[in-house]
Amino acid sequence: MASTLNGFPVTLDDVTSARDRILRHLHYTPVLTSSTFDSKYGRKFYFKAENFQKTGSFKSRGALNAVTKLVEEKQERVVGVTTHSSGNHGQALAWAAQHCGLPCNVIVPRNTPTVKIDAIKGYGADVTLCEPNPTSRAETCAAICSEKNYVYIPSADHYDVMAGQGTIALEFLEQVPMLDAILVAASAGGMVSGIACAAKQLKPEIKKPFGKDLERCLREGKRLWPEPPQYVDTIAEGIRIQQLGKLAFPIVLSLAEKEVFTTTNAQIVEGMRFAFERMKVVIEGASGAVIAAAMSKRLRRMDGRLRHVGVILCGGNVDIDHIPWLPTREA
Amino acid sequence: MASTLNGFPVTLDDVTSARDRILRHLHYTPVLTSSTFDSKYGRKFYFKAENFQKTGSFKSRGALNAVTKLVEEKQERVVGVTTHSSGNHGQALAWAAQHCGLPCNVIVPRNTPTVKIDAIKGYGADVTLCEPNPTSRAETCAAICSEKNYVYIPSADHYDVMAGQGTIALEFLEQVPMLDAILVAASAGGMVSGIACAAKQLKPEIKKPFGKDLERCLREGKRLWPEPPQYVDTIAEGIRIQQLGKLAFPIVLSLAEKEVFTTTNAQIVEGMRFAFERMKVVIEGASGAVIAAAMSKRLRRMDGRLRHVGVILCGGNVDIDHIPWLPTREA
Repeated sequence: MASTLNGFPVTLDDVTSARDRILRHLHYTPVLTSSTFDSKYGRKFYFKAENFQKTGSFKSRGALNAVTKLVEEKQERVVGVTTHSSGNHGQALAWAAQHCGLPCNVIVPRNTPTVKIDAIKGYGADVTLCEPNPTSRAETCAAICSEKNYVYIPSADHYDVMAGQGTIALEFLEQVPMLDAILVAASAGGMVSGIACAAKQLKPEIKKPFGKDLERCLREGKRLWPEPPQYVDTIAEGIRIQQLGKLAFPIVLSLAEKEVFTTTNAQIVEGMRFAFERMKVVIEGASGAVIAAAMSKRLRRMDGRLRHVGVILCGGNVDIDHIPWLPTREA
Repeated sequence: MASTLNGFPVTLDDVTSARDRILRHLHYTPVLTSSTFDSKYGRKFYFKAENFQKTGSFKSRGALNAVTKLVEEKQERVVGVTTHSSGNHGQALAWAAQHCGLPCNVIVPRNTPTVKIDAIKGYGADVTLCEPNPTSRAETCAAICSEKNYVYIPSADHYDVMAGQGTIALEFLEQVPMLDAILVAASAGGMVSGIACAAKQLKPEIKKPFGKDLERCLREGKRLWPEPPQYVDTIAEGIRIQQLGKLAFPIVLSLAEKEVFTTTNAQIVEGMRFAFERMKVVIEGASGAVIAAAMSKRLRRMDGRLRHVGVILCGGNVDIDHIPWLPTREA
C-alpha cells in the first residue's frame, strides 16, 4: 500500500536554513520567459535557469547544503565525503567539498567519458573507477567509506540534499509568486521531493506535474517497478534512473501530482533546440525533457486554470562537441 | 581634426525617457558571472545577457524606442517604417513595428540566407531584395521611403536608436554599480554611443574600451578609414562594418576610451565556446568578440584599478545548425 507522510519530512525551516547556509556561495538563478513559447503553447511559462547554477546544475544546492551542514554538526570529525555519480552530482559534490576544504572521492563507472572524469577532477576530487553495474558501485563506495572514514552523500535520497534542492522553490516563488504549477524532471527524486516540500508549504494549492514515467507507480503506490529497471537509451542521461529513492518516494507520493509526462528522444531534442535557438540557453537532455513536457499535448489538454507554469531547466552540462542535432567532428 | 561635443547629444533624460517608453515591452536582462572566468583572467567580470533580449539582441531596445517615439510625435501621419539590414536590426525593427501596429519593409541583399529572411518575415514585415552593395541598398531604401512614405530607421546613426541602446547602461549600472569599465562591440556605433552617453553621465569615471579596429581612427580623429572598407571575412558578422556613423563618431571620439581591441576568428570562436560550455549561453560572433577582448593579453596588461569589468553579450542570433566548431549536417 501507499506510504503516507506525517507532516513534511523536509520542513520549510529546513529549506530556509539551507538557503541561509548556501545562498551566498551560489547563483540566485534568473527566470527566463519566451512570448513565442507562451503563444504557441497557450499558457504563461517561466523557466528557472538552474543550468546557470555553479557546476552547471541544481545539484550544487543539495551537495553544498549537505556538506556544509555535516561540517557544522560534526566539525573536525568529518575527514572527507564520497558518492557514486558520473554526472552532475559527482561534480557538485566535488565542488562543495572543495568549497568546505574537505577531501572528496567520487566513484564512477569504468566506461565514463574522460570529459566527465576531468570535470570531477577539475574540482579537486579523487576519482575511483568501478564496474558499470549497481553492485560494484555500491561496494566500491562502501569500501571508500570504511577505509577512509569518508561520509557518503547520495545524489538524492538524503533530507539535507532535498532541503538544498528545495531552495529552488523558495527562489522561484519569490520571483514568480503567481505560479500555479511547477514542471520538474524526476530521477531518484531528490529535486522533486525538495521542491514539493518547499512549494506545498509555501503555497499549498500549487501543482507539480513532473517529467518521467512514474505515473503507474504513483497511482499504484509502488516504489519499485514490476520489472527491474532496464538500461534506457536516452539522451536525458541525468534522469535515466527509473526508481524513486526510499526517502523520496513517500514525499513524491503525498505531495507531487500524479500527472507524469514521458518524452521520446526526438521530443527531448525538440525541447533542447527550442532552448538553444529561441531562448539562447545551453541545456542538457534532462532540461530538454521538461521543456518537452511543457510542449506536450497532454499539458495542453490539462486544466486551463494552470495559467502560470514554472519549468525547471535543471542543468546545462551537455558536451558542446556533441550537440544532438549535429554530426560530430571526426577524430 | 577631431570633432568635439557640446554636451551630450543623447542626454540622460533621453535615455530615461526611452526606458519609460520601452521597458515594459522588453526583458530586463540578467547579469551573469563566472568565477572560473574571473580567476583565469584576474578581474571580476559581469556579463549583461542581451542575447536574451526580445528578438535575440539589444537592437530591439533602439528600434522600439525610435518607432514608439515616432508614433508619439507624428501620430497617424506615420504610415510605415523601413530599414536595410539582413541582421539583428532588421528583425528588431520588424518586431518593433509589429508591436506598434505599423507596416514595415526591410531591405536585404539578394544573397541573404533564407533563415534570416524568414526571421524578419516572422515578425510580420515585408522583405525587399536588393543587390549586395551599399549603393543598391541605399537606393532601394530611398525608393521605398518615397513610394510608400515610410520613415527610414537606421540601425545605429539615429539619436533615438542610441537612446534606446543607452538603456543597457542604465540597467547595468543599477545591477552592478561598481562597474569600472564596460566592453562593447562596435560596428556603426549605435550601441557604443548610447552606452557611452548614458554611462558617462551616470558615472563619469567609467571607462569603455570596446571591441573592433577603430583605434587608429579614434587616435587620429578620423571617421573614415584611409582605405575604403573592405569585405572582412569574420564570423562576427554583426560587427563587420568598419566605419562609425556620422552621428556616432563624435560621441565615440569624446566619450569612449581610445582602447580598441581587435580579435581573430579563432579568438571569437574561443569566446563563443567559453560562453556555450561554461556559462551555458548561446551567443553570436559579435558577443564572442567581446569575450575575446575580455580574455585578451591586452586587457590583462591594462590598469589593475579596472577591477569590475562589464561585458555586453550583445546578441545570440547564431544559426544553431551551423555552430562554428562543429561540422554541418550534409544537405
